[in-house]
Amino acid sequence: MTEAVEYDVVVLGGGPAGENVADRTRAAGLSTALVESELVGGECSYWACVPSKALLRPALARADARRVPGLAAAIEGPLDTGAVLAHRDWWTGNWKDDGQIGWLDSIGADLYRGHGRLYGERKVSVTSPEGEHHVLLARQAVVLATGTRALVPDLPGVAEARPWTSREATSAQAAPGRLAVVGGSVVAVEMATAWQALGSRVTVLARGPRLLPRMEPFAGELVAEALREAGAEVRTDTAVESVVRDGPTGPVTLLLAGGDTVEADEVLFATGRSPRTEDIGLDTVGLEPGGWLTVGEDCRVTGKDWLYAVGDVNHRALLTHQGKYQARIVGAVIAARAAGDPVDTTPWGPHTATADIKALPQVVFTDPEAASVGLTLAEAERAGHRVRAVDHDLGSVTGAGLHAHGYHGRARAVVDLDREVLLGVTFVGPGVSELLHSATVAVAAEVPLARLWHAVPAFPTISEVWLRLLETYRG
Amino acid sequence: MTEAVEYDVVVLGGGPAGENVADRTRAAGLSTALVESELVGGECSYWACVPSKALLRPALARADARRVPGLAAAIEGPLDTGAVLAHRDWWTGNWKDDGQIGWLDSIGADLYRGHGRLYGERKVSVTSPEGEHHVLLARQAVVLATGTRALVPDLPGVAEARPWTSREATSAQAAPGRLAVVGGSVVAVEMATAWQALGSRVTVLARGPRLLPRMEPFAGELVAEALREAGAEVRTDTAVESVVRDGPTGPVTLLLAGGDTVEADEVLFATGRSPRTEDIGLDTVGLEPGGWLTVGEDCRVTGKDWLYAVGDVNHRALLTHQGKYQARIVGAVIAARAAGDPVDTTPWGPHTATADIKALPQVVFTDPEAASVGLTLAEAERAGHRVRAVDHDLGSVTGAGLHAHGYHGRARAVVDLDREVLLGVTFVGPGVSELLHSATVAVAAEVPLARLWHAVPAFPTISEVWLRLLETYRG
Repeated sequence: MTEAVEYDVVVLGGGPAGENVADRTRAAGLSTALVESELVGGECSYWACVPSKALLRPALARADARRVPGLAAAIEGPLDTGAVLAHRDWWTGNWKDDGQIGWLDSIGADLYRGHGRLYGERKVSVTSPEGEHHVLLARQAVVLATGTRALVPDLPGVAEARPWTSREATSAQAAPGRLAVVGGSVVAVEMATAWQALGSRVTVLARGPRLLPRMEPFAGELVAEALREAGAEVRTDTAVESVVRDGPTGPVTLLLAGGDTVEADEVLFATGRSPRTEDIGLDTVGLEPGGWLTVGEDCRVTGKDWLYAVGDVNHRALLTHQGKYQARIVGAVIAARAAGDPVDTTPWGPHTATADIKALPQVVFTDPEAASVGLTLAEAERAGHRVRAVDHDLGSVTGAGLHAHGYHGRARAVVDLDREVLLGVTFVGPGVSELLHSATVAVAAEVPLARLWHAVPAFPTISEVWLRLLETYRG
Repeated sequence: MTEAVEYDVVVLGGGPAGENVADRTRAAGLSTALVESELVGGECSYWACVPSKALLRPALARADARRVPGLAAAIEGPLDTGAVLAHRDWWTGNWKDDGQIGWLDSIGADLYRGHGRLYGERKVSVTSPEGEHHVLLARQAVVLATGTRALVPDLPGVAEARPWTSREATSAQAAPGRLAVVGGSVVAVEMATAWQALGSRVTVLARGPRLLPRMEPFAGELVAEALREAGAEVRTDTAVESVVRDGPTGPVTLLLAGGDTVEADEVLFATGRSPRTEDIGLDTVGLEPGGWLTVGEDCRVTGKDWLYAVGDVNHRALLTHQGKYQARIVGAVIAARAAGDPVDTTPWGPHTATADIKALPQVVFTDPEAASVGLTLAEAERAGHRVRAVDHDLGSVTGAGLHAHGYHGRARAVVDLDREVLLGVTFVGPGVSELLHSATVAVAAEVPLARLWHAVPAFPTISEVWLRLLETYRG
């Protein structure tokens, strides 16, 4: 083992969360090392957000175009799957991280490629792919940003069936003839949408009674309806009991509870994530390996004053943008503490990740798009708020009808009746992905409804649903 | 003249502003008459917002689709112009107002078809197309919502040339081979975009140095660039001096200052609007006919306690959504005064049209879309604010790049340095029309920048430009 190198900050994991911590600590003048065992840029850049959206955008743009009179007829044929996949490859840099390395250089952070492990307070060891060892000492802080990996259930035959996870689903080089998708959450519905559009015959097998179970019920209902219209089969309340691959290149058969079987050429398990914490030396600092890391509102690991966790691994919000948000806050906290400045732990303050709890936004890039921020009605009720859900048919908004003939969608605002502010908003419909941020601002800023009346939506945009929601609430 | 009929409220003009006044006064239990000389629904429904967007949406959807790898090749051919025009006809109800009449019935307002004129305080006479006369007495208020008409400059030969105005440009039943568009503002650039996409060869002749002169300079620059790429000719700093139509069906020739000529099959004058106030009896109540009506923040006509003006005619903001906003406020003011309740004239209060001045939103449905709210940098500086413009290249935002390959666009936030709130925001780029409302909420609610950091844009949406703007401001 070589001599130890000292840094102010050592970041374990070079995904968006880790990168953003490094960006902020470097901006504060703190020397920073970033340790990454795979590609700098992380899951998001190579096997999640970016390639998935590169696959989905053509599907959604085609669906949009098909709903436009005068254009629809031009778009009868299938997508050019080869062109879509090549463009996806371009977005991932062909799974090389040269671009990210250049950025890391530009901010002056040092990269250590290899597997990083804590081995006691403020100490990290790194083993490079070539077997070299480095020891990094962190004067100020160690930040864990190691993310998650796909969680494949331990069913009979799963390992031999070589199932797809989100990685294979976003990086595959051809559309399978038949694709079974096990799961009903975001990865499941997005990948079902993409591959159905790219030429696969998709069967979705969701365990629960509906898709997108964390969103308002109508989100999963509308997405299931559209998937079926696109030609996919969607089965809910379905449990997969075992998997059999017929030889090395043969089809895979899923046995379902109740005795049905589903045959497919590939099977994607989109059944959750597990934290990458089983081999990062947590035991050397008195923490349990393999679990999610428990943090406070400042993303500091409970009971440690030098250890932080950002991104998926702290289980606050498994979303790239939220990991980056936490990273900005942790960067500010570390910088303040290094400078001896006070840490402001008031809600919505500069050192508190309040939005994780109160204003968490998410866009599901299906057709229709499903976008939500804050609490659903059920969540708000469970949290004890006195609330009212205000619903509106998006298709009745002029701007929506102009956007797409036969527009089909729905909006819900969850109003806190005591304070007359919004606790959550959900939009489901074509073209709502950019509409969400208006709701995110309203929820995060706790804008009173009385003031939202002065935020006039331009006519004729889909955003005019805001006016309809306010009118419906006024009654 | 028949016996007078008494109402609480008489509204002159049945466009969106007048309709919304009636909606609110009826909701307050006040009897209401609405007088309309043409189609109920007004300019917006038949010759402006609605048909123009029905013409534009296919053009924009095709442009969007062409920027999507794997889909682009399917969209080589021209739009089906017949299908687009037929769909536009459907949106305008073939220029029949049956749908609007049904709505008026449902709220319980009485419709008087015909030309309405004041003839003294609280009195309105209506002459129907059949020559019948009605006298309406208004116990509480008369609301003028007569709107505007196209202003065609009085150039030699104009009348004989039978030029298009916004009405012909939105209702034409075929694409002219060559269309000259005189003007550089919203109607000019939208109609140039639509007809160029529908098969015309368009020449834009703008008087000023750039298009969209009321927006940030880059808006007009990007729209001009895109119009040229689409095959249109765009000439700025150009004055039309005279117009000659060659016989009843022949082409029209425009003579420009400097001696150039432009020949076209039709010429659209999109050169401004004039208020429809010359023949509504303003002289009978001591006001000057033909001019814009001067109102206060509550949209009450200056010096009158019973007369209001909403929509285009008060010249506060010539936009449908803003007319509707004023209508809601006037409805609330009239209802409060009728009930003897106090009128709350504080800024952003329920009886004050503050957004007209502080948070006016507008979307121009060109390719790229241009969307803005609040003040431009130049306007903010002129108003004496200490400001900084924060710019960002929209094409560098991951969500924008995923939306369209080769995405080209720009965003600007105008920050009030004293209060650290936003005075204005402009987005120009494909797909930004629904993004605007996030800025409208932020500007109208005066959300502090420190709080906007907690409004996390979902990744990867175009909305992530918000994060870049905040980062750029922080520096």
